[in-house]
Amino acid sequence: MISPAIVLSRPQIGENIGATARAMKNFGLTDLRLIAPQCEWPNERAMVLASGAGDILAGATVYPDTASALADIRLVLATTARDRDIVRPVLTPQEAAQRLRAASLREISGAILFGSERAGLDNDELSLAEGLITIPTAEFSSLNLGQAVLLLGYEWLKSGDTTPPMRVRQTLAVPATRQELNGLFEHLERELDAGGFFFPAVKKGAMVRHLRAMISRSGLNDHEVRTIRGMIVALVKNKYRGERKE
Amino acid sequence: MISPAIVLSRPQIGENIGATARAMKNFGLTDLRLIAPQCEWPNERAMVLASGAGDILAGATVYPDTASALADIRLVLATTARDRDIVRPVLTPQEAAQRLRAASLREISGAILFGSERAGLDNDELSLAEGLITIPTAEFSSLNLGQAVLLLGYEWLKSGDTTPPMRVRQTLAVPATRQELNGLFEHLERELDAGGFFFPAVKKGAMVRHLRAMISRSGLNDHEVRTIRGMIVALVKNKYRGERKE
Repeated sequence: MISPAIVLSRPQIGENIGATARAMKNFGLTDLRLIAPQCEWPNERAMVLASGAGDILAGATVYPDTASALADIRLVLATTARDRDIVRPVLTPQEAAQRLRAASLREISGAILFGSERAGLDNDELSLAEGLITIPTAEFSSLNLGQAVLLLGYEWLKSGDTTPPMRVRQTLAVPATRQELNGLFEHLERELDAGGFFFPAVKKGAMVRHLRAMISRSGLNDHEVRTIRGMIVALVKNKYRGERKE
Repeated sequence: MISPAIVLSRPQIGENIGATARAMKNFGLTDLRLIAPQCEWPNERAMVLASGAGDILAGATVYPDTASALADIRLVLATTARDRDIVRPVLTPQEAAQRLRAASLREISGAILFGSERAGLDNDELSLAEGLITIPTAEFSSLNLGQAVLLLGYEWLKSGDTTPPMRVRQTLAVPATRQELNGLFEHLERELDAGGFFFPAVKKGAMVRHLRAMISRSGLNDHEVRTIRGMIVALVKNKYRGERKE
């Protein structure tokens, strides 16, 4: 499987190239291409910002123009902050990532093109792309180059990520059995009854159901059930001690 | 509707607080809370990095401890970079954002808790949260505080965003009618036939179908159909001119 290239057109600020490399490495991207960097290259500030992603920077390739940077690419998507006067589908980052992922699974080379910090991509560059990508923001929209790469990289990883939306450490948390829960219910209700909690008696049925629902939905594990029964014992012990004193 | 608070516990670096404010404003979050900042506060570097989000910084509230910062919050989710030895569901950022959005629509106050740059959140703080959030990354995992806030803010905005995955500028691009496409097919095929393109004749049917499929799937709009017919006229004109010369 080939991962999409991240292509920065005329980047001006070394820090942003470094942040790009770091963002890429976090999300499993490796192919960094620079078109006519406007800053010194190689760049010391880029190395500092790349942090542990110096290998991505060191492997970056530099091209004189967009055509040569994209020569081997089959699916080009270009980022743009605002709507452009150009007939081209505009994709969300998620949709773009899914299309790049689908292409990648067919060994079709893809690239995401990012414009310079000041001016973005020009219309000639945008005309080379199959689609545009706009990151949704609030009314205030001020994402820098490194942040834009971070969000696209994140969506790239997500498009192939199988992490379940919610997971629980299975080794530590085994949900309690119904028998364990029933043991807790009976223990608690017996002691509450002894303490005169169910008053008036006519409401006991409803109160018990309310209490059982509250406990059932809390998803207690076996260890927690034992802990709570220990707490009941401790509370009850004090109560009897109090009564003995009287 | 109330938006979740972004709560930074013992932040150490002013720049990260500024980047947090900027990320928040991009994604429609306003309630920034700081627990015992370890850097100077107010902080000049934070102001520089906040860029246009100085209002978020100026409105930030400072608390001495986690309990007071979260006092009015009903749903607390805490970010953690690695799995912790704690029985708590771990959510993806997307799942977390959807839960916060659902809470927010019921006017239930939510918060996302971020730990300090060096140590993250301690186990006492994690024990206050209903759930943990871990940002999925590749094997290399090195997101700073500002980047983590950016990604969570992005998912927050996305959870309420109705931008379609793909949109096309409707004012400019009206898909061509079948009649316009048929006009193009016939025009093109007539001229190709005259030019001897369909050879051998027995293959003409298949060649025409292939050509029509190629054009049909390209999603031409009415303006583009007219442009292409103009191109055919121009190409044909040259050909006849050439023939006339012979």
